[in-house]
Amino acid sequence: MSTHPLEEILHPRSIAVVGASDSPDGRGYGFLAPLLEFGFKGEIYPVNPKYSEVLGKKAYPSVRDIPGPVDYVISAVPARLVPQMLEDCAAKGVKVAHLYTARFSETGRQHAAELEREVLRLAKKGGIRLIGPNCMGVYHPGHGLAFDDDAPKTSGTAGLISQSGNVAGDIVRVCGMRGVYFSKAISYGNAIDLNECDYLDYFAQDPETEVILMYIEGVKDGQRFFDVLRQATLVKPVIIIKGGRGKSGTRAAASHTASLAGSAELWPTMVAQAGAVYAESLEELIDLAASFYLLPPIKGHRVGVAGGAGGASVLAADQCELAGLDVVPLPTELREELKRGGISIWDWIGNPADMSIREDRDFEVGDMLQVMAKYQDFDFLIAIIGSPHHHHGQPEITTDTFLGQYRLNEVKKTKPLLAVVYDRSLGQDEWDSWNWRVTCEVRTKLIDLGVPFYPTITRAAIAARKLIEYYQGRRSPADNLR
Amino acid sequence: MSTHPLEEILHPRSIAVVGASDSPDGRGYGFLAPLLEFGFKGEIYPVNPKYSEVLGKKAYPSVRDIPGPVDYVISAVPARLVPQMLEDCAAKGVKVAHLYTARFSETGRQHAAELEREVLRLAKKGGIRLIGPNCMGVYHPGHGLAFDDDAPKTSGTAGLISQSGNVAGDIVRVCGMRGVYFSKAISYGNAIDLNECDYLDYFAQDPETEVILMYIEGVKDGQRFFDVLRQATLVKPVIIIKGGRGKSGTRAAASHTASLAGSAELWPTMVAQAGAVYAESLEELIDLAASFYLLPPIKGHRVGVAGGAGGASVLAADQCELAGLDVVPLPTELREELKRGGISIWDWIGNPADMSIREDRDFEVGDMLQVMAKYQDFDFLIAIIGSPHHHHGQPEITTDTFLGQYRLNEVKKTKPLLAVVYDRSLGQDEWDSWNWRVTCEVRTKLIDLGVPFYPTITRAAIAARKLIEYYQGRRSPADNLR
Repeated sequence: MSTHPLEEILHPRSIAVVGASDSPDGRGYGFLAPLLEFGFKGEIYPVNPKYSEVLGKKAYPSVRDIPGPVDYVISAVPARLVPQMLEDCAAKGVKVAHLYTARFSETGRQHAAELEREVLRLAKKGGIRLIGPNCMGVYHPGHGLAFDDDAPKTSGTAGLISQSGNVAGDIVRVCGMRGVYFSKAISYGNAIDLNECDYLDYFAQDPETEVILMYIEGVKDGQRFFDVLRQATLVKPVIIIKGGRGKSGTRAAASHTASLAGSAELWPTMVAQAGAVYAESLEELIDLAASFYLLPPIKGHRVGVAGGAGGASVLAADQCELAGLDVVPLPTELREELKRGGISIWDWIGNPADMSIREDRDFEVGDMLQVMAKYQDFDFLIAIIGSPHHHHGQPEITTDTFLGQYRLNEVKKTKPLLAVVYDRSLGQDEWDSWNWRVTCEVRTKLIDLGVPFYPTITRAAIAARKLIEYYQGRRSPADNLR
Repeated sequence: MSTHPLEEILHPRSIAVVGASDSPDGRGYGFLAPLLEFGFKGEIYPVNPKYSEVLGKKAYPSVRDIPGPVDYVISAVPARLVPQMLEDCAAKGVKVAHLYTARFSETGRQHAAELEREVLRLAKKGGIRLIGPNCMGVYHPGHGLAFDDDAPKTSGTAGLISQSGNVAGDIVRVCGMRGVYFSKAISYGNAIDLNECDYLDYFAQDPETEVILMYIEGVKDGQRFFDVLRQATLVKPVIIIKGGRGKSGTRAAASHTASLAGSAELWPTMVAQAGAVYAESLEELIDLAASFYLLPPIKGHRVGVAGGAGGASVLAADQCELAGLDVVPLPTELREELKRGGISIWDWIGNPADMSIREDRDFEVGDMLQVMAKYQDFDFLIAIIGSPHHHHGQPEITTDTFLGQYRLNEVKKTKPLLAVVYDRSLGQDEWDSWNWRVTCEVRTKLIDLGVPFYPTITRAAIAARKLIEYYQGRRSPADNLR
């Protein structure tokens, strides 16, 4: 357990959902249902004067009317009702209110901005900390807290701090498909009280969190953020994507979370100076999450690639080099070893190893990967798995047969290993075909094996290069004292 | 019909498959089966002294033994048997031999290179044109020719020239999933006789082909290639990806198709000077194929975006700007129109239009797109469709309901329109869930509607920008006379 003040806030013993409702269209349902589905252990109190019961739980007209203590309140009522609700919360001794409620300063309207200031004033007066407003709040599966019922129930060691709720939900879901699970994720919106610095400081100290992901539209205090980030990166990797980088994105960020995005060109430099990792897109953030979550440190840029065929091998070499990797030639000793093993293409095969040229049927791609794994010339390996080919005339290949030829479990014991499994924009016809089902099973097995996978060689290569450069540039705590 | 000499070669009346076999593992089966499956109308002759019949067709010991005339021969025999086969072909009056047969100069072995020269000498002496060696040959679905039985049977107006067979098969299959179909595709390997210039010249003249895709590892004659390319781009768009760009890719290209890849840094400039479009990756080539195939010309960089929510809209703005698009603010007249229509967020909504902030339930994303489509301020629109959200508690949304809210058919009548439908790395669990099935149905419906789709906003934006710049820079035939 951390001694950070947020620790208590993120472990409530009782939760009231204000504006709770049985209608599955609204968030009054959308916040209550996940608490039940995720098995929140404490008391759950729906609050809504229109109902005596919501989703089988006794409902109360206001927070004041709840019999027991209330630690945590989720507000799904309209903005104009928030001041009264906060006064009820103060009377009840509520510690924190998560305001899903939006339509404050992000609307750009003066009266809404005034109401937001009034909300903050009332919260401070009542001793209530605020998450939000205009956000999805907390996903903490180990404690039974969630804002979407389709998020994974599995806990993990990634932490997410996201100014956008939509982006938070997307990252949590898509990371789950890539083998990355979360200790906690916080969507924090307009951040009028608790802000990105508080959350980052918490995650840096949280023993349940080993890698931190951030989606930020704007920071309240640039100097404090830089200092907190620099401290955080001493103890764990922090991967950041900035929303609102150009003119139009800055406008969009203002109308989304009332953020002053600005000075976009400074962000990559600032993030690098603080020792964090900058992601260029949401896809890249998720690729980096998979890399940092699943891979050991990689010491250098020298990569061995196997599994592509023909032109795919040529393009793999190109894309790896363009991404900043060093696709080294096969070492002479390795060729000699192949020759001694009777492999007829010992003089012809290269790196990437194009296995489509082999004559020896029992020399499989996994054999080549295992040979490559033995040599110090490679810092890590990439296996191009792709997806099985769909020949109408041929029998289906089982997932075990298809994946078995790669010997990934053996290879990863010797060298850091990334896999490429294609995403394809499937239509109705592909949905029913066995090769795409096998591809899905392959991904699930890779997660079980702890091997990160990427939809293209380019994305694998970039995710590896940024990981390598993070570990090469990592500071020790002593560096901060200089 | 084109009068180009290749026209006759690509329309054979009879085909012999030398090395034909009943065993589905080998290409002797793999070339014969698609001819039957694609319904090749002419005579098909399996050739193999070991069999009297292959796949229900009478087999012959050699090409000489075939009773009728043979226009086209596919060779799947080992390299050492090719000289005798070519002498048989010459005696029979064969016009063209496609040599799938490999292990010639690409092995880097001297005797194999010598054999390749002997093969060329014998072909010239016998009056036989060669496709290859070391290639998959011709996919011409309208004529019943194919090298993979899982390629689409549908013909279209894209033409593909690919030095790699693996890349050719991949492009044909994946393009089919994106609504792009082919007149013909040619995989040409080592190109010792017919080469990239001959094929490009043919496709430029071919009335069945409207856009040309190329994967090239090396050209035989740089000046001739530039001249042929420059002529081709006068009449139709040509999109090129270069394999073998860096040191390791150049090595890989040499051992793949014996190509002298070299001078990689010159390629983007050369391609641009010739008026063609340069693709940075195979994914981008396919995105560009979808754009050029399905979109009308787009006159400028000003884009309107709708359909993202919250942070996804902010990131959409960023990624469009980073890709070189101009995400213009909503015009005042448009806001006034929304206000007159009673839309309460008329002053707040922007471009990208984040529909998650709307209060008016019957003002859907398709209504916003239709309003945007009316204004000259936008050169084109991007609809972010994503995929439907998977709430356990809620009923499934039908594909028609989900896609219907976008009104794409109406919108595309007024403005060029691109869609974003996410690819996700599905695992076993997702394979069975309704929202991913709906996503697959959405893609199929988009193809029916003729709306190109892309898995990320970044890829849509780059594909649009390169299309715009192609049309802005397009030369007229008169330009070449200056």
